[in-house]
Amino acid sequence: MNGSKEITIYDIAEALDLSPATVSRGLKDHPAIKKDTKKRILEKAKEMGYQHNLFASNLRRNKTNTIGLIVPRLNSYFMSTVIAGIEKVANQAGYNLIISQSLESVKKEEINVRTLYNSRVDGLLVSLAYDTDDISHMEMFLDKNIPVIFFDRIFHHPQCTNIIIDNFKAGYDVTSHLIDQGCKRIAHITANMKRNVYADRMKGYKQALSDHQIPFDEKLVFINNLSDHAGIKVSKEILQMKPLPDAIFTANDACAVSCIRELKMAGIKVPDDIAVAGFNNDPLSKVIEPNLTTVNYPGQEMGEAAASILIRRLDKLEGTSLNTIVLRHELIVRESSLKKK
Amino acid sequence: MNGSKEITIYDIAEALDLSPATVSRGLKDHPAIKKDTKKRILEKAKEMGYQHNLFASNLRRNKTNTIGLIVPRLNSYFMSTVIAGIEKVANQAGYNLIISQSLESVKKEEINVRTLYNSRVDGLLVSLAYDTDDISHMEMFLDKNIPVIFFDRIFHHPQCTNIIIDNFKAGYDVTSHLIDQGCKRIAHITANMKRNVYADRMKGYKQALSDHQIPFDEKLVFINNLSDHAGIKVSKEILQMKPLPDAIFTANDACAVSCIRELKMAGIKVPDDIAVAGFNNDPLSKVIEPNLTTVNYPGQEMGEAAASILIRRLDKLEGTSLNTIVLRHELIVRESSLKKK
Repeated sequence: MNGSKEITIYDIAEALDLSPATVSRGLKDHPAIKKDTKKRILEKAKEMGYQHNLFASNLRRNKTNTIGLIVPRLNSYFMSTVIAGIEKVANQAGYNLIISQSLESVKKEEINVRTLYNSRVDGLLVSLAYDTDDISHMEMFLDKNIPVIFFDRIFHHPQCTNIIIDNFKAGYDVTSHLIDQGCKRIAHITANMKRNVYADRMKGYKQALSDHQIPFDEKLVFINNLSDHAGIKVSKEILQMKPLPDAIFTANDACAVSCIRELKMAGIKVPDDIAVAGFNNDPLSKVIEPNLTTVNYPGQEMGEAAASILIRRLDKLEGTSLNTIVLRHELIVRESSLKKK
Repeated sequence: MNGSKEITIYDIAEALDLSPATVSRGLKDHPAIKKDTKKRILEKAKEMGYQHNLFASNLRRNKTNTIGLIVPRLNSYFMSTVIAGIEKVANQAGYNLIISQSLESVKKEEINVRTLYNSRVDGLLVSLAYDTDDISHMEMFLDKNIPVIFFDRIFHHPQCTNIIIDNFKAGYDVTSHLIDQGCKRIAHITANMKRNVYADRMKGYKQALSDHQIPFDEKLVFINNLSDHAGIKVSKEILQMKPLPDAIFTANDACAVSCIRELKMAGIKVPDDIAVAGFNNDPLSKVIEPNLTTVNYPGQEMGEAAASILIRRLDKLEGTSLNTIVLRHELIVRESSLKKK
């Protein structure tokens, strides 16, 4: 913002021998200004390097036309598709997107919330960190009626809308499919139960077991951070179990892929000895051999929906009555779970 | 930004029976204010929902503490690691990050540049779209001495710093490795030659051929958008060639992985019949069988370097004399290219 003197509408007016009011209207595409005049004004503005003071004019209107986004991690395939969807909708509607990552820590999430608050974003899109217990750190937004929309990792609050898939149903679908393939000792690898996505998938897993008269066995549940590394570690633990599980359902694909590789290296046949299913439909799932059974999670669509709802709230086209939007998921059956061929 | 009345330092001063000057200093952690008083001021400010007007104070200082980012596509693994690196450094230095995607179109890139200009970002980080010919659309930034830093897909300009890897050397390394493995008919799949990353890798490919007395054959070069889909299409073309190439070097991993899958389905043995090498060290490269030979591209480090340089420029710790920063790449040899075992 340093450098040469700021060009104002007065400079443009002087250069064209027009009134400042005409220049101002011309720049705003006002119908009272002739097409030719508008063209001259716009060309001169460009030539002189006029910078519309969106910043100051937003300050006057008490609106910044920016949306704040807080996600756990930017460097995951799923999150990058969500962000691509958010950016697409925000950009089309004339909003800028300010992004930040909590790195799965509520402390960093709090700092990000505070920064975005002081930056006066018009609204907030959030997917929560692993260890966030409540949303008291977002109360400054809610107290001012600045909309907060949660997606993926959500929080129920009367002022907030949530965008999710039916994680219970998806967990139920995967587990039922494994049971249909003859599996009876199904391990479940998942992450922090504070987060709805993992808690709900687990509930679906338990319900499917129960509906098929298979007793739930706590020893078959493993909680970690679902990284590649965690997949290797947990696979080693699983390989020590006697008897071995006959299936593994992991709450993401990265960890499932890591498990398959580890099991194969230990001489275990997938799916014949142990069937494996993941979650997300990450590109990895179509490359691992055998190809991974997974749940399609519509990331781009989730991002577009979250941004659309937020912008509709800002435009007063939507109130706080909209509680939850559930997007469609889909079980994708591939070789990694097909014991019956 | 709607809702209840704005809380000012005057309200806090009244509530605590202090002078507004004391409150203002307390909020700024001024040494003249006692620790106890500071604590009371901060607690009251929090309780009353005081929102520091960073926005207005930035306007006065003519600084927004925001960095603008334009990338071709947000939903690629490589770009998501770059952005994670940028966000980390920007966040630590107290800058917000505004992101946008050009979707590989110079038209959209122009619109994004204009929007970020009007949002008065303090500086710009850019990786160019496929079809961008020059950076005249960024002249408004350069005319005002607002720093513009390019990374990955760069542009040489006296006012701009570029962050790259040595794409020529990397292309040379991959091709030489394939030649060392006995390959003589090496196909190269790449993208738009307007972009340095592809043009430089191609130059490295040609130089390695020349240094090993292998004539360059234009028919072995395929230019597309390096998507999965392009990989399938180009593999089908390659399978029609007589004689077949004995190696394929693709300028990204997604396309290489797609080629390997297609070749395997057609009964071609990788690497025995055709060796394959990619570029980026995407997680896919460690999952495809055989594992993919590739070039490690340090995305996180590139993002961190780009943000650091920009912030140093803004803090006047760095001038425009810094032309280019070259990060270290590394050839990673895996099974997909090892003909000699």
